[in-house]
Amino acid sequence: MKLHPMEDRIVVRPAESEERTASGLVIPDTAKEKPQQGEVLAVGPGRRAEASGEIIPLDVKVGDRVVYSKYGGTEISVDGEDLLILSSRDVLAKVEK
Amino acid sequence: MKLHPMEDRIVVRPAESEERTASGLVIPDTAKEKPQQGEVLAVGPGRRAEASGEIIPLDVKVGDRVVYSKYGGTEISVDGEDLLILSSRDVLAKVEK
Amino acid sequence: MKLHPMEDRIVVRPAESEERTASGLVIPDTAKEKPQQGEVLAVGPGRRAEASGEIIPLDVKVGDRVVYSKYGGTEISVDGEDLLILSSRDVLAKVEK
Amino acid sequence: MKLHPMEDRIVVRPAESEERTASGLVIPDTAKEKPQQGEVLAVGPGRRAEASGEIIPLDVKVGDRVVYSKYGGTEISVDGEDLLILSSRDVLAKVEK
Amino acid sequence: MKLHPMEDRIVVRPAESEERTASGLVIPDTAKEKPQQGEVLAVGPGRRAEASGEIIPLDVKVGDRVVYSKYGGTEISVDGEDLLILSSRDVLAKVEK
Amino acid sequence: MKLHPMEDRIVVRPAESEERTASGLVIPDTAKEKPQQGEVLAVGPGRRAEASGEIIPLDVKVGDRVVYSKYGGTEISVDGEDLLILSSRDVLAKVEK
Amino acid sequence: MKLHPMEDRIVVRPAESEERTASGLVIPDTAKEKPQQGEVLAVGPGRRAEASGEIIPLDVKVGDRVVYSKYGGTEISVDGEDLLILSSRDVLAKVEK
Repeated sequence: MKLHPMEDRIVVRPAESEERTASGLVIPDTAKEKPQQGEVLAVGPGRRAEASGEIIPLDVKVGDRVVYSKYGGTEISVDGEDLLILSSRDVLAKVEK
Repeated sequence: MKLHPMEDRIVVRPAESEERTASGLVIPDTAKEKPQQGEVLAVGPGRRAEASGEIIPLDVKVGDRVVYSKYGGTEISVDGEDLLILSSRDVLAKVEK
Repeated sequence: MKLHPMEDRIVVRPAESEERTASGLVIPDTAKEKPQQGEVLAVGPGRRAEASGEIIPLDVKVGDRVVYSKYGGTEISVDGEDLLILSSRDVLAKVEK
Repeated sequence: MKLHPMEDRIVVRPAESEERTASGLVIPDTAKEKPQQGEVLAVGPGRRAEASGEIIPLDVKVGDRVVYSKYGGTEISVDGEDLLILSSRDVLAKVEK
Repeated sequence: MKLHPMEDRIVVRPAESEERTASGLVIPDTAKEKPQQGEVLAVGPGRRAEASGEIIPLDVKVGDRVVYSKYGGTEISVDGEDLLILSSRDVLAKVEK
Repeated sequence: MKLHPMEDRIVVRPAESEERTASGLVIPDTAKEKPQQGEVLAVGPGRRAEASGEIIPLDVKVGDRVVYSKYGGTEISVDGEDLLILSSRDVLAKVEK
Repeated sequence: MKLHPMEDRIVVRPAESEERTASGLVIPDTAKEKPQQGEVLAVGPGRRAEASGEIIPLDVKVGDRVVYSKYGGTEISVDGEDLLILSSRDVLAKVEK
């Protein structure tokens, strides 16, 4: 199964969480939510500008590693893998490795 | 009875839920809502651009399989079948089978 | 008494509810609200486009049968008959009989 | 005292309520609010279009009988008479007698 | 001290309240708030149109008697007198005496 | 340390509060908040118009005495002095001494 | 790891807090939140104007010291250092040292 995101949406594979320590203990969440990282698997064509109706292409592309707001996305399970569909506006930054 | 959606609305037939296991047990919902899939049965002509008033055609067509936000649609029963009327903005992605 | 709706409003005569079974028992509402159907009795001239001020004509006409969101309208009693004044944006779809 | 409404506001004299039965008993309000009728006593010049700044004239005039949303207006007592100042957007329909 | 209101703001001197009866008793507020009247003491140059940036002059002038929404203004004490700074959008109507 | 406000923001030095009486007693706040006065110490270049992107210069300048809404600003301590950073939209009026 | 902020976002390294006294005691937060200072480490290309779609370049640059609203940013840990991703709209002022 392959997802083709609509408008300015993207599909992201969340990075392995590092909240699990070497010994396997789960570190409890702190009160302050932290953003998440992931890899971009698919991107939409872009949303239309409100006034002109022209399509604004996305600034992220397939393969980019991104930091995104934890609150923006929608979880979806594809072939047993948990992915996220995000608006590209929920992407805070691209990460250069 | 046949539905002709207005503006950017679409009619979707929700896919069979897979929340029922092989043995017939219902798996309780997790706290985190998951999006739904379905098949597009009818599409509206598109909504008008705010500024120009021009009609923006939809990016989904009859027969598309879509992933949509669970919170967006309105349920309607047509000839004994439960369908959904969604805004096309509630469609997150098209699914390629 | 005759109603002339303003802007993009329409007057709808709600269809006979089918929530009453053959034996006359009232079926209690389920938690999930369902849209309603009705017949369009009157339509306004259309609202003005935000930017240009031009009037956008309505896509429904007198005699259309429509499905509408239950939450949008205002009830009004005209000559002893319960009617609804809706914004045309609350119309989800036209119904072809 | 005479009121000159600003922008798209109008002054309405609410019609005699018919919630009082022939025998003088007050019928309690139902849970569902119903719109009100009244006569237009004064109209403003119209509001300015957001983009062009041009004044959009009102579609109601002095003497019109209108149905309006109960929630929109502000009560004002003028020479001992209870009137309402409404935005013309709160007018749902004109009534032809 | 003299106030020069910014943008579309105006300075209003509230009229003597008539909520005090001849015998000096204070009549308790009813549940429904009523608008207030007052005299315009100063007016701003007008706010800028969102799109064009042009200044839209006010429709009220110094000396006008206005009815205004009780919820809009900010109280300010000038030389021992309690005045109000309102947006001109909170003015409902001008009063002709 | 010197502050250069961004966009339409300004830096204000709040006037000495007069809520302390001659005998040094603190007068308790009334339920109704009153606006504050202060002196403008620095002004930003102005914000950009939504549509055209042009910069709209501010209507206040360094040295102006202004009345501002108590709820708008952000407190900042500069060299031991408590100042406020406000949006110029929170300025209600200029005061002529 | 290097962050490239999207649109009008910036990456800020918060200044050393001065809430810790010389003797090492933590001073409790006052009820009134104060803004924070920091150094700009990276800036995005700017967001697009709503109407024209043109990119509006940022008014802050790498190396600027800024005062920002405490409520706007998202915390992110980069190579063991706690940084913030902010919208440039959350920057209140630039600081000249």
